[in-house]
Amino acid sequence: MATVCTPHTISPAAIVSSSPVRCSHSQSQLLFGSNFPNRRHHNPSLPISAPNLRAATKGRVLCSQNPNPTPTRRPDYVPNRISDPNYVRIFDTTLRDGEQSPGASLTSKEKLDIARQLAKLGVDIIEAGFPAASKDDFEAVKMIAKEVGNFVDKDGYVPVICGLSRCNEKDIKTAWEAVKYAKRPRIHTFIATSPIHMEHKLRKTKEQVIEIARSMVSYARSLGCQDVEFSPEDAGRSEKEFLYQILGEVIKAGATTLNIPDTVGYTVPTEFGQLIADIKSNTPGIDNVIISTHCQNDLGLSTANTLAGASRGARQLEVTINGIGERAGNASLEEVVMTLNCRGEHVLGGLYTGINPRHIYMTSKMVSEYTGMHVQPHKAIVGANAFAHESGIHQDGMLKDKRTYEIISPEDIGYDRSNEAGIVLGKLSGRHAVKKQLEQLGYELDDVQLETVFWRFKGVAEQKKRVTDADLRALVSDEVFQPEVVWKLHDLQVTCGTLGLSTATVKLIDADGREHIACSVGTGPVDSAYKAVDLIVKEPVTLVEYSMNAVTEGIDAIATTRVAIRVENSDMVTGEISQRTFSGIGAGMDIVVSSVKAYTGALNKMLGFKERFPLEIAAESAERTPVSA
Amino acid sequence: MATVCTPHTISPAAIVSSSPVRCSHSQSQLLFGSNFPNRRHHNPSLPISAPNLRAATKGRVLCSQNPNPTPTRRPDYVPNRISDPNYVRIFDTTLRDGEQSPGASLTSKEKLDIARQLAKLGVDIIEAGFPAASKDDFEAVKMIAKEVGNFVDKDGYVPVICGLSRCNEKDIKTAWEAVKYAKRPRIHTFIATSPIHMEHKLRKTKEQVIEIARSMVSYARSLGCQDVEFSPEDAGRSEKEFLYQILGEVIKAGATTLNIPDTVGYTVPTEFGQLIADIKSNTPGIDNVIISTHCQNDLGLSTANTLAGASRGARQLEVTINGIGERAGNASLEEVVMTLNCRGEHVLGGLYTGINPRHIYMTSKMVSEYTGMHVQPHKAIVGANAFAHESGIHQDGMLKDKRTYEIISPEDIGYDRSNEAGIVLGKLSGRHAVKKQLEQLGYELDDVQLETVFWRFKGVAEQKKRVTDADLRALVSDEVFQPEVVWKLHDLQVTCGTLGLSTATVKLIDADGREHIACSVGTGPVDSAYKAVDLIVKEPVTLVEYSMNAVTEGIDAIATTRVAIRVENSDMVTGEISQRTFSGIGAGMDIVVSSVKAYTGALNKMLGFKERFPLEIAAESAERTPVSA
Repeated sequence: MATVCTPHTISPAAIVSSSPVRCSHSQSQLLFGSNFPNRRHHNPSLPISAPNLRAATKGRVLCSQNPNPTPTRRPDYVPNRISDPNYVRIFDTTLRDGEQSPGASLTSKEKLDIARQLAKLGVDIIEAGFPAASKDDFEAVKMIAKEVGNFVDKDGYVPVICGLSRCNEKDIKTAWEAVKYAKRPRIHTFIATSPIHMEHKLRKTKEQVIEIARSMVSYARSLGCQDVEFSPEDAGRSEKEFLYQILGEVIKAGATTLNIPDTVGYTVPTEFGQLIADIKSNTPGIDNVIISTHCQNDLGLSTANTLAGASRGARQLEVTINGIGERAGNASLEEVVMTLNCRGEHVLGGLYTGINPRHIYMTSKMVSEYTGMHVQPHKAIVGANAFAHESGIHQDGMLKDKRTYEIISPEDIGYDRSNEAGIVLGKLSGRHAVKKQLEQLGYELDDVQLETVFWRFKGVAEQKKRVTDADLRALVSDEVFQPEVVWKLHDLQVTCGTLGLSTATVKLIDADGREHIACSVGTGPVDSAYKAVDLIVKEPVTLVEYSMNAVTEGIDAIATTRVAIRVENSDMVTGEISQRTFSGIGAGMDIVVSSVKAYTGALNKMLGFKERFPLEIAAESAERTPVSA
Repeated sequence: MATVCTPHTISPAAIVSSSPVRCSHSQSQLLFGSNFPNRRHHNPSLPISAPNLRAATKGRVLCSQNPNPTPTRRPDYVPNRISDPNYVRIFDTTLRDGEQSPGASLTSKEKLDIARQLAKLGVDIIEAGFPAASKDDFEAVKMIAKEVGNFVDKDGYVPVICGLSRCNEKDIKTAWEAVKYAKRPRIHTFIATSPIHMEHKLRKTKEQVIEIARSMVSYARSLGCQDVEFSPEDAGRSEKEFLYQILGEVIKAGATTLNIPDTVGYTVPTEFGQLIADIKSNTPGIDNVIISTHCQNDLGLSTANTLAGASRGARQLEVTINGIGERAGNASLEEVVMTLNCRGEHVLGGLYTGINPRHIYMTSKMVSEYTGMHVQPHKAIVGANAFAHESGIHQDGMLKDKRTYEIISPEDIGYDRSNEAGIVLGKLSGRHAVKKQLEQLGYELDDVQLETVFWRFKGVAEQKKRVTDADLRALVSDEVFQPEVVWKLHDLQVTCGTLGLSTATVKLIDADGREHIACSVGTGPVDSAYKAVDLIVKEPVTLVEYSMNAVTEGIDAIATTRVAIRVENSDMVTGEISQRTFSGIGAGMDIVVSSVKAYTGALNKMLGFKERFPLEIAAESAERTPVSA
């Protein structure tokens, strides 16, 4: 039996119904105006095809806590067209914009792992990086294109792999060289269009900017790339007439997706929605391409702006896991997707995505651990408290009926409380059990990596009765995803407390296997140990962040420590000084040991970077334009 | 010269102009419809009164980084009326809803300090707590009413002090007994109105619910309270016709503010805005009262929903500092206020608040330290990265023109980089200098407290060249705002590292001054120290969170450690088991020492609570209704 929701209110029955939920849409028409595409509802007699079925069952899947949502097929991928007007593509830019967060730099191995996880999640497009930025970036994008970009699942799904590039031939060529190995490669190119950016940053006239955009989109197509995205950077502050003009020109030149970035996070939802609607109404040729949103979060409105864009015609939404990114970050994938899943059918005109929400929690955990960008306890959907009804006064309602205070169940996003709380793994568990559990957690390790993790696991199991999922995750990030080793911690010995001076002795091994020993006093155990490390490594760095989270319950948990260090480079030619931040993580049951591992990890990352790109930073500030497209 | 902004775009000149910014408002009319109050603009010849001037200069104050915004008077306070239709009241519920976050329990002293800071910020209404919840809550609200609720500034501003109560005589009487000492006391009472809550939680009919609401509002007025707020809990999922009816009845009974909570954070902005507009159009007598919003953040939309409510007629917005609160929290004060400040004049019809944004950063810091609810680095406005333009690729634009990537400057919210980076305080600084700096940071300490902090300061200054603001803040929270001492750490001695078993010896002093010594081995230094503490204190608790942040730059920074422990109570009568979480913080240059201080702090809080309210938790789950009003 189909449940029909009445305008403005959702009947409780609709929330828990196990039958497909249908909506009269009088409300969405009212809220979003008549230009809202609503093909399915204008043709109620239309047979329900697979994607429609998916949309139609969305409310049921998420609100009834049905553990097995029927998997359905998303519309076939055609760059500039989507066969179902209600299907919204999710473009994840965690690996590009997210990685721009201070200190969030990822190694290639970490990037590949996240890309694999994004494919599991069902992201339509993965922006894997900015290939022209550095050799590392190039290699990471190429690796992702080859491995993740060719893994076609049984339903024919494979993510588009996208590379960012400025509007110049070198960048575009480099991006193509990196992404072309994917089954569905895309080039994303951008140039700023707001008066303030054109005048002060680009120092170019409108006509020059149009000409560059047009010719570079054309160039990208000429390389053989059928899927080209163009972004007018700072669109939120650009003149609308100019936007219609430049967008019309790049469509003629062959762009297939037009992304509209609110680069400084300046707009409010009605305003941003209006911008999308205006572009949709006024840009010549717009019906042949996909409109996309990219909303920064400076005023805390990115999720709402993104949804407003979708409700006014955008069919690609650019987001990041946990909402990370430059400054206050981007719209977060989990908020945008879960709002569409929970309310898409009722108040957002039937919009739906191809994301499988059950992988959200794992992906969030992985991104937070690899980037070191912690998620606050009250972060929507993925925060530690998001599903906590702990204060005595709420528990009463929850005991009587969960629906009183819970609109999404933790299981919907793959957060299984029983998994977190108590796990079967212990000191008698074998390799196979550990491997299986790791796979469940989203880690695909090769034999060598598994062997390393397994022996660490044994060490932990000796000391703890139960080894939890969180412990396992900490071990994996600590052992497998460390940067190339220049310095390795061999031994550490510390005394501290209120009764004497903190003293630490460290033994480090260098790349050639030589032992170095130093000791130092300090204001605390970590300070003294870091000072001892400094005596050996001799690199002038500033500690800009030091933080730690016990990742599991219990006092004997494995603590993950994160350290961010800043190093200054000065350009030999211009004398200009620039800075770069590197982070390292360490996991262990002794927080002083994990702190030192985190510190040597950050130093190794920094040294590896310095070796490969000694002038990178200086070159950047001299030549590069900013990317918040 | 007044700058007129064109529809849809803000000219760069408007952003940096030092003259008052005016707006044609064609856009806001377009976006929010014609029922949007816009008196000032409909009467352009109206003389600019003080509050109008404030609104008119808002764009200038915030976008030109003018260090001295002209202070202007807000409209006189009348409970059910605001003389300027564009003025929006800010109702802060950090001390009530914010404190409901798991583990965020605050001591009375901490609450008073936060209330003082909220008054500095210029909050119109402070919801100081839920007086009937416990004796502690009652005393805290009463103290805030007496002290903060009577401090009238030279412009006549004094915050309203509000106490929450369920719809029963005992709660309302208790709330009144606590708030009546304030110059402007308010009672806030609530009852659930959604079908799901009425049926499953209250087990009452619509008629019964209306009768309770009507009679209890009447009762509150009969006590002599002129300022009564009523909330239909879970309004976001209530039937609209029923809402109009119950709201109409409570208006007749004397309610002066009607708060519309989206209790489960279920709505999207257009939907919530429409709810407010519908209530405004359909509720009898609504023009004589103030409509308020209260938006939870479960889908990440609370800020947008709150603003949508304001744009459709709400003139009180309920928010918390840093957006803390039950589950994913509430709309955050800083996001709502800064959006109104930055864009109110341009796209929100001229709405403005009385908040002085220069106190935002300090307030955010204080709340995050006292509650232990960390703010993620990419949190809008107050996150550590909110103003960081660090990645090489953005620096170029910032160097050429700050406006390319910055819409709010850190100084606007009182975050002075130079203050954070390097401060004059050192080992030669005297009591006066320390006191002055503490005052600047928002701390008003009595002589005894100052003395304690000063000697700790001296200790730190002995070891560090510069004592930063962050160091000072850590010292204050550690020394002054600790719960009543049951157990005090006297001495600690730890050895750890990779070369042997971690071993800790602790000496604790009990309330009677007796020494207790114990030693233990453990998996790390903190584990062994905690185990030694457990041997002495003998309380069965579970560690649910352990985290730490180095609060300052540099390896020799003072680290603040936070610990949350959970304790289970079982009701002797029903046998029902309930849980409660307590947190403790510790600061010090030795992280093992600060970890132990945090742990004993949490234990002390728990023991103090147990002593005063042994059956509190059991009573709660048996009788209390949830409060997410």
